[in-house]
This record gives sequence, C-alpha cells and structure tokens, in this order.
Amino acid sequence: MATKQLAKWAVNLSPSSLPSSVTTAARRSLYNYIGCAIGGSHHPTVTKAWKALQPFGAEPQQALRLGTPHRINAQLACLLNGIASHVHDYDDTHLATIIHPTGPVASACLAWADFSSKPITGPELLTALVAGIEASCKLGLSVWPAHYDVGWHITSTTGSIGAAVAVGKLRNLSETQMAHAIGLAAVQVVGLRAMFGSDTKSFHVGQAAQAGFTAALLAAGEFTSSEQALEARRGWGNVVAGGGEVKLERYIAELGSVWEVERNAFKPFPCGIVVHPAIDGCIQLHKEMKLGKKQRVEHIRKVHARVHPLVNELTGNRRPKDGLEGKFSVYHGCAVGLLYGKAGPAQYTDEVVTSEEVKQLRNKCVMKADGSLRPDEVVIEVSFQAAKPLKKHVEHAIGSLEVPMTNKQLEDKFIDQCTPVLGDRTREISELSWTISQAPDVVEVLRKLRSRTPERPTSDRRSINRF
Amino acid sequence: MATKQLAKWAVNLSPSSLPSSVTTAARRSLYNYIGCAIGGSHHPTVTKAWKALQPFGAEPQQALRLGTPHRINAQLACLLNGIASHVHDYDDTHLATIIHPTGPVASACLAWADFSSKPITGPELLTALVAGIEASCKLGLSVWPAHYDVGWHITSTTGSIGAAVAVGKLRNLSETQMAHAIGLAAVQVVGLRAMFGSDTKSFHVGQAAQAGFTAALLAAGEFTSSEQALEARRGWGNVVAGGGEVKLERYIAELGSVWEVERNAFKPFPCGIVVHPAIDGCIQLHKEMKLGKKQRVEHIRKVHARVHPLVNELTGNRRPKDGLEGKFSVYHGCAVGLLYGKAGPAQYTDEVVTSEEVKQLRNKCVMKADGSLRPDEVVIEVSFQAAKPLKKHVEHAIGSLEVPMTNKQLEDKFIDQCTPVLGDRTREISELSWTISQAPDVVEVLRKLRSRTPERPTSDRRSINRF
Repeated sequence: MATKQLAKWAVNLSPSSLPSSVTTAARRSLYNYIGCAIGGSHHPTVTKAWKALQPFGAEPQQALRLGTPHRINAQLACLLNGIASHVHDYDDTHLATIIHPTGPVASACLAWADFSSKPITGPELLTALVAGIEASCKLGLSVWPAHYDVGWHITSTTGSIGAAVAVGKLRNLSETQMAHAIGLAAVQVVGLRAMFGSDTKSFHVGQAAQAGFTAALLAAGEFTSSEQALEARRGWGNVVAGGGEVKLERYIAELGSVWEVERNAFKPFPCGIVVHPAIDGCIQLHKEMKLGKKQRVEHIRKVHARVHPLVNELTGNRRPKDGLEGKFSVYHGCAVGLLYGKAGPAQYTDEVVTSEEVKQLRNKCVMKADGSLRPDEVVIEVSFQAAKPLKKHVEHAIGSLEVPMTNKQLEDKFIDQCTPVLGDRTREISELSWTISQAPDVVEVLRKLRSRTPERPTSDRRSINRF
Repeated sequence: MATKQLAKWAVNLSPSSLPSSVTTAARRSLYNYIGCAIGGSHHPTVTKAWKALQPFGAEPQQALRLGTPHRINAQLACLLNGIASHVHDYDDTHLATIIHPTGPVASACLAWADFSSKPITGPELLTALVAGIEASCKLGLSVWPAHYDVGWHITSTTGSIGAAVAVGKLRNLSETQMAHAIGLAAVQVVGLRAMFGSDTKSFHVGQAAQAGFTAALLAAGEFTSSEQALEARRGWGNVVAGGGEVKLERYIAELGSVWEVERNAFKPFPCGIVVHPAIDGCIQLHKEMKLGKKQRVEHIRKVHARVHPLVNELTGNRRPKDGLEGKFSVYHGCAVGLLYGKAGPAQYTDEVVTSEEVKQLRNKCVMKADGSLRPDEVVIEVSFQAAKPLKKHVEHAIGSLEVPMTNKQLEDKFIDQCTPVLGDRTREISELSWTISQAPDVVEVLRKLRSRTPERPTSDRRSINRF
C-alpha cells in the first residue's frame, strides 16, 4: 500500500494544507538551494560535466542553468544544477537520515517550472518541493540506517523518488500516474558511498534529479510501472534495505503529521556534516587563541578531539590530496578552523588543502571516537608550546536543529558563496531568491535570475524557448 | 583490483585478439539485436516513451532510432533502442545469469558509432560489443544468484557497466578513464524485478544503455570516480550482492579465457526464457495432435506439465490481462503452442491473450514444479476427451546452447518480427544487418538502415548532424 498511499497523499497536498512552519522551512530550503547551486555552478566538476554532455543538452533552451545566463535542455539542467548544488558539500541536511533533500527535488522542480507551458506559481512550487522532500525523507527513514551503512548514498537513492513526486505534482499527475512515477524513479537507484571524494559523489545528486524528472514525464505519458514499487517483495524497500528492517508503513503513515522539512538543517561549512561540530569548536578556539600570523602552527603542540564515531569512519582521512578530499577530512576542517577561524569555500581549495602550514597542523591532530557523544557534539583540547591548554565542549554545533542558522546567516552564506559567480548582482539575486516562493509565475523570477544577460520580453522568450 | 583489471583488459582488447568463435557469436548477437530493436520499435511502450521525451531528445539529429527514418539525440536513441530491443522479450540470453546482454551494450555502441565524428569500423564495433558483453556477464556471474534473487533485474544492473565499457572502447578511453567510466556506470543501478509485466521492465534496458553511454562520455571528459568502484567495501559488488558472496576476483580473472558471448543464446519465442521448454514441447505436441480448427479446446481435457521451479516462480500467472502479462505466463505459452503451433509476437497481442479460446485452454493447464529438471527441460502430458494421451519430454529447449538457433532460424525470426515495421525492405535490411560487423564505416550501414527515407550525401549529413 505504501506506493499508492504516498501517491495519494502527494497528489492531494495543496498549498493551503501546509502549516506555516512548513512553508517557512521549505522557503529557507529553496533559498539555501539556489545559493548552493549558483555557488557551485562554476566548480570544475560541473564544468567537466557540461563540456562532456553539451552536445546532447545545449539545446533546446528549456531551463535555466543556475549561475549562468543560459537556458539549456531541461534534462541536462536537472543534472547540472543538481551537481552544482551539492559539489561544495554546502547544501542542507535532514539530520535524522543525513539526506541532503533539496538538491534532487528542487533541481527537477525548477527545470519543470521553467520548461512548462503552464505557469507555475511560487506556492505551487513550494508545495511540490515539500511533497518531494517529505517523500525522500520518509523513504530514507524507512530504510535507515542499514541502507546507508551498506553503502548507498541515501541522498540520491531517495532523491530520485522525491524529484519524481515533486515534478509529478507540478505536472498534475493522477494518483495512478503518480504511483507509476514513483515506480519509474524507484528503479533508478543512484549513488554509492565508495565514490565519496570523487566527482561522482555530486553526480549522484544531479542524476537523481534527472531520473525523477524523466520518471514523472514518462508517467504523465501513461508509461506504466508497478503500483507496489516500494513495498513489493522485489520492490525498492526490500531490495535496497541492506538487510535492515523496512519501515515503509510506519513512516508513510506519518505523512502530513510529522513534517521532515522542518527537521532540515543548513550547513554552515562546505563539507561533510559530521565534521561540523569539530570545525565549530576549532573556530571558537581560534578566537580564544589570539595567535600571531607567524609561528601559529609551531605554537600549537597537539590537538586532541573526542568525536562521534561516524566522524572517523566518514572523514578519517588525515592526508587529503585536494579540495574535494579535504571535505572528507576532519583533520583538515580542524586545521583551517584553528588557523583561519573560517571554513568557507575558500578554505577548501586545492591550494589550501595542499599548503605546508595546513598539512603540518593536520598532523598534530588526534581524533578519538567516543560513542557517548551525539553526532553534533565534540570535545577539543589544544596544547601549546608555551601557553596553557585550551578546551572547548560544543554541545550542539552551529547549523544543528538546536542552534539553527538564522535567515541572516543563510544570507551571509548565500552572498559569500555566490559573489565569485554573480559579482555585483549577488545581493539582488539573493533577494530575488527569497521572493520565488510567493511569485505569481516562477518563470518571471527565473528570468531575472539569469545572470549577466539582457532581459527579453516574456512573450518572446516563451514562444521561442518553450516547447 | 577488479575495477582496474576490467578497465585494463577492456582497453587492450583488439579485434585481432578475438577468437573466431567469439567474433561469430558477437556477430549473431548484433544481428539478433538489430532485429529485436526494429521489431519492437513501434510497440506502444516505445511510442509512449518517445512521445513523453521527444521535447528533450528529438534534436540534435545524432543517432538512428532503429525501425524509423529518424536520427535523434544520441542519449535518447540509447534509451529508445534499448527499450525496443527488449520490449517483446525476444532478445538474447546469457543462460548462466539470465542476463540479456546485447540490448544495453549495442544500443549505446550504435548511438556512439552514429554520433562519432571519427569513423568506427565494423570490427571495432564488434570488439567494443564483446568487451561490454563480457563485462556485463562477468559482473553478473560475480553476484549471481543472490543479486537476482533479492530482486534486481540483472540485465540492466550489469548492462549499464557493460555499455560504459563498450562506449569507452569506441571512445578510446585510457585505463584510468575506463575505470572512472565503470564507476560512473556502477553508481546507476537500474532495474527491479517488481516491475516485470509493466512498461518499466524494458525501460530498464534503455536506461542502462543511456547510463553507460553517459558514463563513458563523462569519463572521457576527465570526470572522476572511484578506481575501486566494483570491489570497494561500499562499492558495487558488496552493495548489490543481496547478501550473497561477491566473486569479482574469480570472474574478472577469467576475462579473455572464458568468453561469455559464446554462451549467449537467442530466444525463439518472445517471452520469458524459462517458459521456452514448455512452449517448445507444446508446439511439438500440436503437430502430433492433428486437431481440427473447431473443438480443439473442447477436445483437450487436461495439460499436465512438470517444469523447473523457476517457471512457476517467474511465470506462474494463469490469468494474464494483456500481451505484456502474457509474456510472463507459462499457461499462455502452453496454450498458444498447443492451439496454434506457434508462439511469435502475433501470439502475444492483447487480443490473443484475452481471447476466450486461449483463456479456456490456460485453465486446463497444471504446472508442477520439479527440482530434478534442468531449466531448459520439460515433461508434458496432454489428455483428451476421446483420444489417447500424448506425452513429450523436451531435454533441451530450442534456443538452448545444446540446440542453438541456426543462422537461418535467426533470419526467419528477424523477418517475422521486422516485416510489420519494414515491409518490403525487410530482407534487404536483414542482409545489411549481417554486413555491419565487417563495414569499413559503421555509419554507412546505419544510413542504409534508415527505413523508408531518401538517402542524403554522407558529407552533408555529417556536417549537419554531427556535433
């Protein structure tokens, strides 16, 4: 029943049925997503994908590639915007499952909204986004933790289904069509954890968006699937659960009463979320250390940290080779936190990751797994050559549900990561990105988001670019 | 090491290193594939996919959609030709794994050969096809049978990797790039058995082709992946093995000494292969029964068959609702075999599946699972109202490795399934399809395969259509 129940719930979800706390959470998720997708839009990972696939997706001009003036093939827009939104590991996190839910869902939604000949309103977009995020997270909860433990990248394995549900809503699918869309997305299981640290990790997110987008459109064209895709004996749940219990009934029953989007947090640092408490602590220690610009590494004798066991398991790489690997090194996060008092995209470049100073400090760090700590907790002690040791206990890291980022902090993050791409249009585009969820026609805002490009009359754009 | 070993072996495989028995087997596989892809090209499943995705893939004109005069976006060509090749369940079967290996691999290869600005020769195409088929089947063997048992559609879960390897060869990837292509395909795990009986089953094959094609092109563009994608703790093997043993080392080591393409069989009937022995037996009984056109169902009292246990498990549906479900009904296969002495595409239409006569005969069939039988073996007894009972013991069904289809039988199959699509060009295109593997430039043959369309000068087509 899970497949049909999810389909029915999603089809019947309306903007007016969303509690205001849900709308607020979804609006923040969308805003944060746009910042991440623009901020990542010129990352080499995205550029490589664009160059390789351009022959197949430069045309027709259907959907905006965020952070550029270009509209491209809507399927490729899903892929590239999805990759861009995740490539800095700076996106959002549903903490209960470590799903980054908005990337696959929003990438697919915006591509459809841009392509659709029927105008999509902001509230419609937001409702679809919520439907997709709830679908992804409930499915994630249903197979958590064994699904993740065995090696699936849970963001994309659930994201394709969330994206299908969201585009299915925008596309006004019937309940049966929605069930088929879920099935078509469920058979495209994208993402293995073995790829973490390579370009393929963020490919997962883009591919999930494209898979869900395609699934919804096929279902709209009466392409059929199983209507028990999730719960069938050889359906999604049993096949991908990694030997763990499949709790579909329990979590699907919660739809509309427990809202997962409210439990979505935003990353203050562009790296694996498990590292955040340690970075938070190190940045706080940096302020207390008052080190001079010189000798700062020499001055530090040792850094001892007690961390949640997942930290070493996921990010225990002491010798990252480049920026991408740096994102999965708790040693690197601590080193830049202590040295610079910052851990933004600028601290995750290849140059910083390979610098001698940072390397030396990483070597002075000792990470001890401590099963008694929460995932958002850390205890750090720094000893010095000629000063008293300092100690910091972070109970809840910045960006956790207990210490959430404020809208102002989200804006600072948006501006920090988008300025290299947007230049003097950054603040304007940040403000526009907040307005999208109330827009009478989302396309009007997307048109304005096209960076550095002259505007054309709407009617003209529509007749030329829309299929 | 499995990923790098496979990459190295594939990169170094050359046309001259193929034993002639391998070339012959690959040539038959390609010929049979073209027949199936043309034969399925106008099936409603393909038409629905084409209509739904046309806005994103009608242009640019890059690769032939088999069975039509049209060249379309190469990625969509992978998808549609892949779906078409599998939609009648009439393709090939690697019997040791029940993989239908040529569909994903050939769909991706032909799309690349058509798109590529560098001419691809027939022997190069055949070598790439062999590399892809060997990759798919060795990977399938590595996780067989638990991978299939748990619910993965093994044709597509291994097919995406095979397609990536094949296109990677045509694209002249380095060993490192090839390892990345394998990784990029390995993270796209497509296909769940819960979808059997719906349009999504053949979608799996097309999507696997497209996934592999895209993976190879991304890798060519220096997009990186894990170089331990297959064997890593959280890589493909361990994640998708369904709790079974992962035998990657053993089977990868066999590459180039045991050739899986030689163990590829061709389906004489367009339905699940486990049904074939029963159909074969029923067709033989039909010839012995000498029933009149009338009363033939009334005359039969009961049909008792002993079948391999997988037959009931996969095809135990006594009441199929339409042609698609008929393919997964051993009852239907027996009924048409006994009634018409044939089980071609014409016996798997909605009309035949829902006809009263066939329904009545299906109801007279009793299928008993017998674990002592081989999968290609069956024993059938038919009792009559007023005649002696007849018995048939089929030791090896037609199309098995022991009783393989001859080239002449493959041609009959090609012509039977392609005539509704190609009309009076069928024989010409059948002959052309044999020649492709020796062609100096595969594109020259593909151009001639374009059905019912005037030829244009090569130089013109290339400059306009090739990117």
